Amino acid sequence: MAHNTYAIGLDFGTNSVRALVVEVQTGREVGTSVFPYPSGQAGILLDDRDPDLARQHPADYLQGLETSIREALADAARHEGFAPERVVGLGIDTTGSTPIPVDAEGQPLAFDPRFRDNLNAYVWLWKDHTSHAEAAEITAHARATRPAYLAKCGGTYSSEWFWSKLLHCARIDPEVFDAAYTWVEHADWMPAVLTGTEHPHRLKRGICAAGHKALYHPSWGGYPDAEFLRGLDERLVRVRATLPETTYNTAQAVGTLTPAWAERLGLPAGLPVAAGAFDAHLGAVGSGIAPGTLVKIIGTSTCDLMVAPLDQDLADIPGLCGIVPESVLPGQYGLEAGQSAVGDIFDWFVRTIRPAGMDHDALTAAAERLRPGESGLLALDWHNGNRTVLVDQRLTGLVLGLTLHTTPAELYRAFVEATAFGARVIMERYEAYGVPVERIVNCGGISAKNRMVMQIYADVMGRPLMISRSTQTCALGAAMSGAVVAGAGAGGHASFAEAIEAMTGVQETVFEPIPAHQRVYDRLFALYRRLHDAFGVEGVSDDLYDVMKTLLTIRDEARR
Amino acid sequence: MAHNTYAIGLDFGTNSVRALVVEVQTGREVGTSVFPYPSGQAGILLDDRDPDLARQHPADYLQGLETSIREALADAARHEGFAPERVVGLGIDTTGSTPIPVDAEGQPLAFDPRFRDNLNAYVWLWKDHTSHAEAAEITAHARATRPAYLAKCGGTYSSEWFWSKLLHCARIDPEVFDAAYTWVEHADWMPAVLTGTEHPHRLKRGICAAGHKALYHPSWGGYPDAEFLRGLDERLVRVRATLPETTYNTAQAVGTLTPAWAERLGLPAGLPVAAGAFDAHLGAVGSGIAPGTLVKIIGTSTCDLMVAPLDQDLADIPGLCGIVPESVLPGQYGLEAGQSAVGDIFDWFVRTIRPAGMDHDALTAAAERLRPGESGLLALDWHNGNRTVLVDQRLTGLVLGLTLHTTPAELYRAFVEATAFGARVIMERYEAYGVPVERIVNCGGISAKNRMVMQIYADVMGRPLMISRSTQTCALGAAMSGAVVAGAGAGGHASFAEAIEAMTGVQETVFEPIPAHQRVYDRLFALYRRLHDAFGVEGVSDDLYDVMKTLLTIRDEARR
Repeated sequence: MAHNTYAIGLDFGTNSVRALVVEVQTGREVGTSVFPYPSGQAGILLDDRDPDLARQHPADYLQGLETSIREALADAARHEGFAPERVVGLGIDTTGSTPIPVDAEGQPLAFDPRFRDNLNAYVWLWKDHTSHAEAAEITAHARATRPAYLAKCGGTYSSEWFWSKLLHCARIDPEVFDAAYTWVEHADWMPAVLTGTEHPHRLKRGICAAGHKALYHPSWGGYPDAEFLRGLDERLVRVRATLPETTYNTAQAVGTLTPAWAERLGLPAGLPVAAGAFDAHLGAVGSGIAPGTLVKIIGTSTCDLMVAPLDQDLADIPGLCGIVPESVLPGQYGLEAGQSAVGDIFDWFVRTIRPAGMDHDALTAAAERLRPGESGLLALDWHNGNRTVLVDQRLTGLVLGLTLHTTPAELYRAFVEATAFGARVIMERYEAYGVPVERIVNCGGISAKNRMVMQIYADVMGRPLMISRSTQTCALGAAMSGAVVAGAGAGGHASFAEAIEAMTGVQETVFEPIPAHQRVYDRLFALYRRLHDAFGVEGVSDDLYDVMKTLLTIRDEARR
Repeated sequence: MAHNTYAIGLDFGTNSVRALVVEVQTGREVGTSVFPYPSGQAGILLDDRDPDLARQHPADYLQGLETSIREALADAARHEGFAPERVVGLGIDTTGSTPIPVDAEGQPLAFDPRFRDNLNAYVWLWKDHTSHAEAAEITAHARATRPAYLAKCGGTYSSEWFWSKLLHCARIDPEVFDAAYTWVEHADWMPAVLTGTEHPHRLKRGICAAGHKALYHPSWGGYPDAEFLRGLDERLVRVRATLPETTYNTAQAVGTLTPAWAERLGLPAGLPVAAGAFDAHLGAVGSGIAPGTLVKIIGTSTCDLMVAPLDQDLADIPGLCGIVPESVLPGQYGLEAGQSAVGDIFDWFVRTIRPAGMDHDALTAAAERLRPGESGLLALDWHNGNRTVLVDQRLTGLVLGLTLHTTPAELYRAFVEATAFGARVIMERYEAYGVPVERIVNCGGISAKNRMVMQIYADVMGRPLMISRSTQTCALGAAMSGAVVAGAGAGGHASFAEAIEAMTGVQETVFEPIPAHQRVYDRLFALYRRLHDAFGVEGVSDDLYDVMKTLLTIRDEARR
């Protein structure tokens, strides 16, 4: 034990931040702490007049950073052999694209008293969809002038992403936009804060956020060119000038912990801090991603990540959020797909619709007793738009098959099934474009907590589903990046491959598809796919007369 | 007061029976009583294995008849001038098609101990949809061999109707079918019981049930011919032989109260009892129906009734449930349309989904504050199939536009709006076939109780909506038929025209359409109509890509 070392992962989620202290040699999680963001509604600043708006307060991040690390260290201190001075590295993941407008010193505008009451000066959370018009504009402009830009991000630029948000801010709040020297992704700001490199001229930005959300790609020399941005809005060119040529992957350190932070946190001064990345990407690392392995991170939304060797002749994959070199692992393309809402849909049903006073457990228990198809329901999981493969926020949820006997449990199960169908669309898209899915590892809260959901996913996808051993794969992956930037010589790991071998694994339980269920779900999926295309794909004409009737036939057969 | 006389209306609904004592000269309602059926769930016998099944116990009808009349008379006794001997006639309405299998003496098989545990021997309630396969078979057979039959019932024979139910029983339970000498509509059985004419050879059947549900029409000599029925099932021919050539309208008495019933009920012996009719048809009478007046009876489902002079050259109207001479008023065609579920949908949402513990009042209060279009939701009101104009039980409810912010009140309002769109489809169908709607009178529980629903209907239909003065129009109409069969010489009325003039009226409040709301609802209705046709009409191909997007545009405009 005396030779064991530790790494810290900091995982900034949508509603809270978690710190995790992990043993580098084993992946054993020895200390953790979660800090819920105190501002707004569960950490999200909302506007009653605009359901698309979702902002955060950067002060929550700073408070959460300090509190969660100190508490996680205190938790770890109960373990024999642990000591803060044995921590060798620190890594960070966040949500994204979650850009923060900052001043010329790199300080968030939200801290400027002038903007205290202006939500546009706060953090623009990933799920903010106010910028859908600008996303459409960027997509159209790129389609006309830079088709290559779109080819790497699925054919459509999203309202959740960096340039949409900046352009929207420029249009609706020029005062904030002009006051912002530049915009920094949450994932880049946190490592900069800890290493004292927030100043825009010193700031190191990660390839993950840049590549997946800000149209950064080495093949065209980094961020989009000024002429392209000028075609959208002259003012974007000024921001472009603040962005660097070089970006960093999570095997690279952006600096070391400042003495001030070292003292505040009780950690060794000089501790290396890895470049930040998105939660899903480091979650995939914490789940042991490798070529052929699809990692599904199932939480409020999902990310469905794969990697493919940089030397593979990879086609552009329509509808994928991004194809970015080294955004997940060095030496590999990072491929990102995802569903805009999964757990969020179940939570909406439980918290907002509040059916019959049933919570998730009660609904799950009742839904688990239903046979596939017996409710006669079919839903589309688009309550928050569709990220993959349609890349369209202007879509909405649907449910059909309602009768006067439809129960809350049936609806709950229908929404679960809808997200499973959405997951299958993503898997099939990967495979159709030469990225075979040989193994599926799931992580995230829902995969750990809800066996019914996982069985339905296995049945719908027709594949065995594994569950990551860690229940905190994002924070674990972040800690692994800390171990990698520490390096083998300093008690860390020489590479992510080594870190994955030493620190990750899967649970014994594997969810195997049940053939009888698969047969029903194949029929339901065919109907789902038709509704998906009818409402989601331009120019598709379909005769849907048989849909309700086929659902009733399937229902009647299931009840027999 | 001393010259005033009274009539009794008996209204057998889906869950209860009401007796109403009405002053013949004024329509004043002096006594009433409601008896909820004690059996099953709110009076309906259900089968967990088959959500389509809905039966009733005939004993509930007998118990309810006696209890409700005795209590209504006791209630009336508090009024000065009332005395039981001043009751001059009695009329009856029931749900339908609600056929009862009876033995050779006219006694319901449900009373035979052999069949105590067999729901097929009980009353087949109108909303029983177990016979959808047989309905399709009858429709196909009629289309091929007797197209005239279908032309009078909207082009499709329904699973709710007489012959579908008989044929289904013959197929799935030959023992019950063989034990039934004949089948009697609930509306015909009740007058027969009171007048001692239950024996099949004495039984007088009403034109209303026969014409609207059993393919009876004078132009082809009454009930469908034996050859047609043989083409469906040889066994139906035996039942056909038990059916009479002549039928009766509600201005005709089937007999007089037996001495035994007179004594049990405390009513004059020899009291004339009118031929029975369906609740909606007598409800239309109680609402003051006349040519040009659409009477909407809005309850668990709706009926939308009109009349047109027998000498009008009336086209067959596709999708209408029926076009039957004298089914509503002597000298007029009775035209029946309707929605399979309206209040039932709202009740399903409140009682089964039970959102956030809100009842109808709480949901209405919250939904009333919403502006048209601002929820972004659009629903199809097909939770119990579609009666008019699609005549198809194999359809289901749909809602789209769901987001993570969708509230119970928004869903409630969307379901209300969906039923309003369904109502508009019916009105437009009448007008398209030469039956102009000059005046709309609403009655039924929802019209009396829920101002929000009525305002939405006015806004969606674009017409002023009146509300019947009586809140018990079905029972009132039944009592009016009692007054008419009594005749002017015996303290009744000489005709329905006289009875309508004396006994009906509308409330002062008229719901006027609000132009700004109409403009939004016209846009939503266009989308509703497209979904209606896409899922409900065979052979319609549509590109629905714009539907969700247009809803979001309407939502965004409504919130501005």
